Amino acid sequence: GLREFASAIHPARAAEFMEGLSPQEAWDVLQASDSAKQAEVFGFLPDSMKVEILETVNPAETSPLVADLPADDRVDLISDVHPDVVEEMLPLLPAAERRETLRLMEFPEGTAGSVMTTEVARLGENLTVHQALEEIARQSEDLETVYYNYIVDEDNRLRGLISARQLVTHFGKPDTRISELMQRDIVTVQATDDQETVAAKVASFDFIAIPVVDEQQHLLGIITHDDIIDVLREEATEDAHMAAAVDPLDDSYLETHWFTLAWKRGIWIGILFLAALLTALALQNYEAEFQKVSWLVLFIPLVISSGGNSGSQSATLVITAMTHGDVKLSDWWRVIRRELAMGLCLGSSLAAAGYICAVILLKGFAPEDASGQPIFEVPTFAEVLVIPITLVMVVICGTLCGGTLPMVFRRLGLDPALMSNPFVAGIIDIAGIVIYMNVAVIMLDSLS
Amino acid sequence: GLREFASAIHPARAAEFMEGLSPQEAWDVLQASDSAKQAEVFGFLPDSMKVEILETVNPAETSPLVADLPADDRVDLISDVHPDVVEEMLPLLPAAERRETLRLMEFPEGTAGSVMTTEVARLGENLTVHQALEEIARQSEDLETVYYNYIVDEDNRLRGLISARQLVTHFGKPDTRISELMQRDIVTVQATDDQETVAAKVASFDFIAIPVVDEQQHLLGIITHDDIIDVLREEATEDAHMAAAVDPLDDSYLETHWFTLAWKRGIWIGILFLAALLTALALQNYEAEFQKVSWLVLFIPLVISSGGNSGSQSATLVITAMTHGDVKLSDWWRVIRRELAMGLCLGSSLAAAGYICAVILLKGFAPEDASGQPIFEVPTFAEVLVIPITLVMVVICGTLCGGTLPMVFRRLGLDPALMSNPFVAGIIDIAGIVIYMNVAVIMLDSLS
Ligand SMILES: [Mg+2]
Ligand SMILES: [Mg+2]
Ligand SMILES: [Mg+2]
Ligand SMILES: [Mg+2]
Ligand SMILES: [Mg+2]
Ligand SMILES: [Mg+2]
Ligand SMILES: [Mg+2]
Ligand SMILES: [Mg+2]
Ligand SMILES: [Mg+2]
Ligand SMILES: [Mg+2]
Ligand SMILES: [Mg+2]
Ligand SMILES: [Mg+2]
Ligand SMILES: [Mg+2]
Repeated sequence: GLREFASAIHPARAAEFMEGLSPQEAWDVLQASDSAKQAEVFGFLPDSMKVEILETVNPAETSPLVADLPADDRVDLISDVHPDVVEEMLPLLPAAERRETLRLMEFPEGTAGSVMTTEVARLGENLTVHQALEEIARQSEDLETVYYNYIVDEDNRLRGLISARQLVTHFGKPDTRISELMQRDIVTVQATDDQETVAAKVASFDFIAIPVVDEQQHLLGIITHDDIIDVLREEATEDAHMAAAVDPLDDSYLETHWFTLAWKRGIWIGILFLAALLTALALQNYEAEFQKVSWLVLFIPLVISSGGNSGSQSATLVITAMTHGDVKLSDWWRVIRRELAMGLCLGSSLAAAGYICAVILLKGFAPEDASGQPIFEVPTFAEVLVIPITLVMVVICGTLCGGTLPMVFRRLGLDPALMSNPFVAGIIDIAGIVIYMNVAVIMLDSLS
Repeated sequence: GLREFASAIHPARAAEFMEGLSPQEAWDVLQASDSAKQAEVFGFLPDSMKVEILETVNPAETSPLVADLPADDRVDLISDVHPDVVEEMLPLLPAAERRETLRLMEFPEGTAGSVMTTEVARLGENLTVHQALEEIARQSEDLETVYYNYIVDEDNRLRGLISARQLVTHFGKPDTRISELMQRDIVTVQATDDQETVAAKVASFDFIAIPVVDEQQHLLGIITHDDIIDVLREEATEDAHMAAAVDPLDDSYLETHWFTLAWKRGIWIGILFLAALLTALALQNYEAEFQKVSWLVLFIPLVISSGGNSGSQSATLVITAMTHGDVKLSDWWRVIRRELAMGLCLGSSLAAAGYICAVILLKGFAPEDASGQPIFEVPTFAEVLVIPITLVMVVICGTLCGGTLPMVFRRLGLDPALMSNPFVAGIIDIAGIVIYMNVAVIMLDSLS
């Protein structure tokens, strides 16, 4: 029946089947499988469902399952359920799990400590391959992974790493000492390191897990490949949100409380709105110009959107390159040179197209009033040059600003992805208007 | 000396030390270590360096190393080096490796086939745990991973999966048949599947590797965790580039040829420029209005940037949620409801702020000419209401458009991330102006 079915399929698949159930129903289904499997399936349920189950079912019933979860997942879960439930739950956990949970809860979100787990094989240096395999088989049920096993001294200081691969490869030589096989040059991270740098390390070394140590090289835990994948997805989403001026969400879009979402969007929309108000202030200074040369109005959106688009291209290219380590601060001159050239190239193409279109629009389709008189003085070919000259300057301003701002942010110790895009857009909106009007005033004055 | 040093450290670390070297120098250093290690270290060198080495050093010397690379990496590398070198290199590879390389090269970029490798343990169903371990140990040197091992029938049809974890756990019961332990319900992907969906599967099942099969369930290869991480990073960068109207780069920012970059940016900047030209056309229709009520000009950038910002927030939130599977097409009504409410809320806040600021700006700081006369007719409190009414409407238009466009793209079978952001920006620029001018005409007419 249910038990056989549940044990034959992957726990993630079993969890998928349960998605439509109510918390109590899901709990009843879970009860049908054996306890080891229970924790596995439970771990794959959607976060919101896990929380609901813990908040619905009696903690006395759920606590054995919570104790069975990997330490990292237990901590994540507990941080999401109602504090009253946590208070009831904690004393019901075995002492070791309770202490571990409380200790891991200390690490702030986004650090290596917050994604590490503690169920890792610690082996003594003197074991043989055969003994190590026996020891791992014995501990196996409590381990997050058996693939990377760490060798520690009596003080729990990390001495080496032996992979299951090495053990299996030496399966035919069971008496080899693991100290002869183990890797001694181990890449580690500190518990306080940013999870993003941890993920970058795992990505470049192709690890399945990475050990977390303190300053004295004591082994605190490991971070496994699956959690690294989650970190990468989380960080990519965070960067995408920041690029669109949304304060990164902690939960998924539909699960985020309406009020939270409004706040996380509103705060940045508000700041950008204040910046945009400066455009109105800037335009007011040139109001007299617009009344004199009213065709200038037509190209305001075109000018600022061209600058904004090229700026956000540059900012995004530099931000993603910095995230991957392809652009370092020391590359600043190469970036500026590149963006300057790109601005010139893109700007002049747009300028050429813009000039032609502006001439057609202004001279060919000049709006006329009822009596057939053009409602503004049709500009000369020379006067229309205001548009292409402005476009070149605004686009260069966009690419330079977009290319440098992320590097400035990094130099200041900030995250380059931190709202660079919206900032660039805001700066270019104002700069675009100022450039446009100054070019117009200077050009038109000198032509008249 | 060098050989001991190189074998003591992780190949990725060794590769890091070599980064400053010339291709010939790097090759000489590689020669110092044994051949298995050589391929490993070579694999971790930056892509551009690998290509340079192959294009500099005699293919007769490099071909054994190329043959030693995992199949997936060999194919990636070969697709980057000069065709002349490839032509020289291919006949030098052992027949099996050559055939495999040519076969894998058939899979288009971005598919599961293009990231899979073929070095996977295939075991018969009748083996015992002890025999399986022996067999894996024997093949080990040629395997990409020993952690997931697949059971196939005589026709190479996938029958089951046995992990090294299960084998190690049953180390004490060496005579157990693997057919009793193996998992039979296996999650697989097709070679033609999009690499992004593969990555999503691996992420949700927490796999170390996933098998690739054809329609008859023949085992073609596997995709391992490290390549999944690369896929995720690649796809996130791709999405970020698309959101900023850059055709995704194949190489890193600084390594992309200047001309390629100009093209990949220029094409979209050009398209957005054409869209922005429509704003000039739209504004021309209202030229007479601007001449009559010239203070309207001041708020053009404010109106369109408010709409654009709220639209890009919505588009990004929906795109990232769809990428993670948090929003499905069937959620369309929830998304629209949410975005409508959000537009109302954000729009009215901006409207309130905008009204106050507009009043202050227009009535308090109205620009005057030399004689102290205001250069435009100062609007009444009622007339300034044009601004807040427009803002509410434009922001709602932005959130609705941003929220729905990615879903429309998905519905049409397109990638929702495909330039949704730039499209939204372009649409809102034009819609914003049309809304603004219509509100102004209707309001000011009815007030006069
Ligand atoms: Mg955590
Ligand atoms: Mg990697
Ligand atoms: Mg974990
Ligand atoms: Mg996890
Ligand atoms: Mg980040
Ligand atoms: Mg972060
Ligand atoms: Mg804009
Ligand atoms: Mg490939
Ligand atoms: Mg996962
Ligand atoms: Mg690979
Ligand atoms: Mg790889
Ligand atoms: Mg994609
Ligand atoms: Mg893709």
